Amino acid sequence: MNDNLLFKQLYDQTSGTYTYLLADKVSGQAVLIDSVFEQHNRDYSLIQELELSLIACLETHCHADHVTGAWLLKHRTNCQIAASTDSGIDPLDKSVSHGDENSFGSFALKVIATPGHTDGCVSYLLNDQSMVFTGDTLLIRGCGRTDFQQGSANKLYHSIKELLFALPDDCIVFPAHDYAGRTSSTIGEEKRHNPRIGGQANETDFVGFMENMNLPHPKQLDIAVPANLKAGKPDDDELPRTPRWAPVTTTYSGVLEVAPEWVAANLNGVHVLDVRTQAEIDEESAQIEGAQHIPIDKLGARLDEVPTGKPVMTICRSGKRSVLAFNLLRQTGRDEVANINGGFLRWYGEGLPTS
Amino acid sequence: MNDNLLFKQLYDQTSGTYTYLLADKVSGQAVLIDSVFEQHNRDYSLIQELELSLIACLETHCHADHVTGAWLLKHRTNCQIAASTDSGIDPLDKSVSHGDENSFGSFALKVIATPGHTDGCVSYLLNDQSMVFTGDTLLIRGCGRTDFQQGSANKLYHSIKELLFALPDDCIVFPAHDYAGRTSSTIGEEKRHNPRIGGQANETDFVGFMENMNLPHPKQLDIAVPANLKAGKPDDDELPRTPRWAPVTTTYSGVLEVAPEWVAANLNGVHVLDVRTQAEIDEESAQIEGAQHIPIDKLGARLDEVPTGKPVMTICRSGKRSVLAFNLLRQTGRDEVANINGGFLRWYGEGLPTS
Repeated sequence: MNDNLLFKQLYDQTSGTYTYLLADKVSGQAVLIDSVFEQHNRDYSLIQELELSLIACLETHCHADHVTGAWLLKHRTNCQIAASTDSGIDPLDKSVSHGDENSFGSFALKVIATPGHTDGCVSYLLNDQSMVFTGDTLLIRGCGRTDFQQGSANKLYHSIKELLFALPDDCIVFPAHDYAGRTSSTIGEEKRHNPRIGGQANETDFVGFMENMNLPHPKQLDIAVPANLKAGKPDDDELPRTPRWAPVTTTYSGVLEVAPEWVAANLNGVHVLDVRTQAEIDEESAQIEGAQHIPIDKLGARLDEVPTGKPVMTICRSGKRSVLAFNLLRQTGRDEVANINGGFLRWYGEGLPTS
Repeated sequence: MNDNLLFKQLYDQTSGTYTYLLADKVSGQAVLIDSVFEQHNRDYSLIQELELSLIACLETHCHADHVTGAWLLKHRTNCQIAASTDSGIDPLDKSVSHGDENSFGSFALKVIATPGHTDGCVSYLLNDQSMVFTGDTLLIRGCGRTDFQQGSANKLYHSIKELLFALPDDCIVFPAHDYAGRTSSTIGEEKRHNPRIGGQANETDFVGFMENMNLPHPKQLDIAVPANLKAGKPDDDELPRTPRWAPVTTTYSGVLEVAPEWVAANLNGVHVLDVRTQAEIDEESAQIEGAQHIPIDKLGARLDEVPTGKPVMTICRSGKRSVLAFNLLRQTGRDEVANINGGFLRWYGEGLPTS
């Protein structure tokens, strides 16, 4: 793998979907392949924490088993949405066709049209041919089904045998799904061991396999396909509401955080909970005006002392133990809780007022 | 990543455990880090299909949340079992200490003693420093708990801050667990963003966090720790019984297969089910003596015609559609079913008798 390539594989456990983040470490330009609606906060926070600039959400096809996060991410990052001209997805910022390249920094993902699971299925090949993102065309020891949308086992056979199996044997296959804890394969492995199309399977064998699978109707299809044809744009055309009680961000570790400047400017509207130890407070007498002090080791037993009515902002020395306080309060069913990013160290560092 | 390195990340969904297979493509020598008992067939079949020679199962520590597959894999592959001298695991083929190297082909994994979650925790660093396998010491935006076995938050703080955070920022962190679909991090990311020990967290902050987590008792601990102290050796000291009805192997795709030579030599003891289409049979009149013929597209409706009493061996032209027949029969609750590897093509190729 090229040292300047940043690569992350992400998994959505509900739908069994893999999302891939690729970025050029030098320029910071990034692309996200096959994002998932429910994971847009996770993916957005990762992009933020890695200080990347998302330039495109690439779809391998119009999915039938989950809704894409592309529209949400576009509206948070100004990225483009790209997919095959034949995917039916509308609106698209970039319609891609066989042979097109999607650049990010000094890298590019080349489009290989691989119809069969749907007419608009494409695979994305990294320009050094070290990795291919095959969507639902080629899975690890499997392949996408061909019995709905525009599925065609014959087309899928030719896409896999003539285009994907023509790639180098060492090319790593990253599919859109796996359900058995496998994260990647290679072209060489699938050529030898794919139980549907590997080894000496011919078109009759493969089509005979695919046409006799008798799979149940995919349970998300009637929801996912209409939503994905709109690139994951919600029915009400609205971005998920940001909380009114504070301008929170979600970290990749899943914590709601707020910047200390905002807290300092809105002290009347919030309740600050300082969870430093008594020894720390004794040593460092500065406090935030109006803050309640309950040391973290006592908080579990004293949760009912934290007043309701105002959003709670948790703080400690460096913003770590206050995450525990955030977790404890959230576990009691309170929604309006956030951790003050960076704790007192950042509060002091920004010259914010103490009493 | 070095082009000669073969790398696979595998996941056990029940325990949320990552297992790692690393191999030198040139020599074929492989090591497996933190295998899982219930996944030993998956991992063994992958090693077989990749034609690798497993030389060691490396344990990062004595796990409390799942049982290792090391003992089973040792008895199937003759690999060594390696872990820290301080892990308490007995018997070990190789006791490793800080600074030791575990070679596989032209690669090596260097041992970094990282106590804290347990006394015997080690991390394994690839010799080019591109990847580190951190076990339960450093997780993605988290770390192992320190409230059981020989847990010490202070020791863990020093292991992470002084040893792991001293590695290059780009070094990829592969942990033993994740529960949110994240597959890797980097040292640089965790130094900046780990919500327990990243940023400006000092020892007091970190220890204060770890000592106030009040986590529930780990539900597998009382089963897993005693089993792992024996490297995953089953209570009856026995390998899982291999089926008596046929010398089957499990493929990485999860299919039970049997070699055609064995079927040819044991025709009286098995029932061969040929699922080729009528057109194929008409064209290619050769049959296996005594075989029943039900075309794959009719099998679903005619399953009750397949006699019980003898194990069923499924076959078609190339051994693909017969996997569907295998699946169909297994779904009816029959256990003694296997696919004949390679189908008629291999049967003919090996000169086995037809009628």
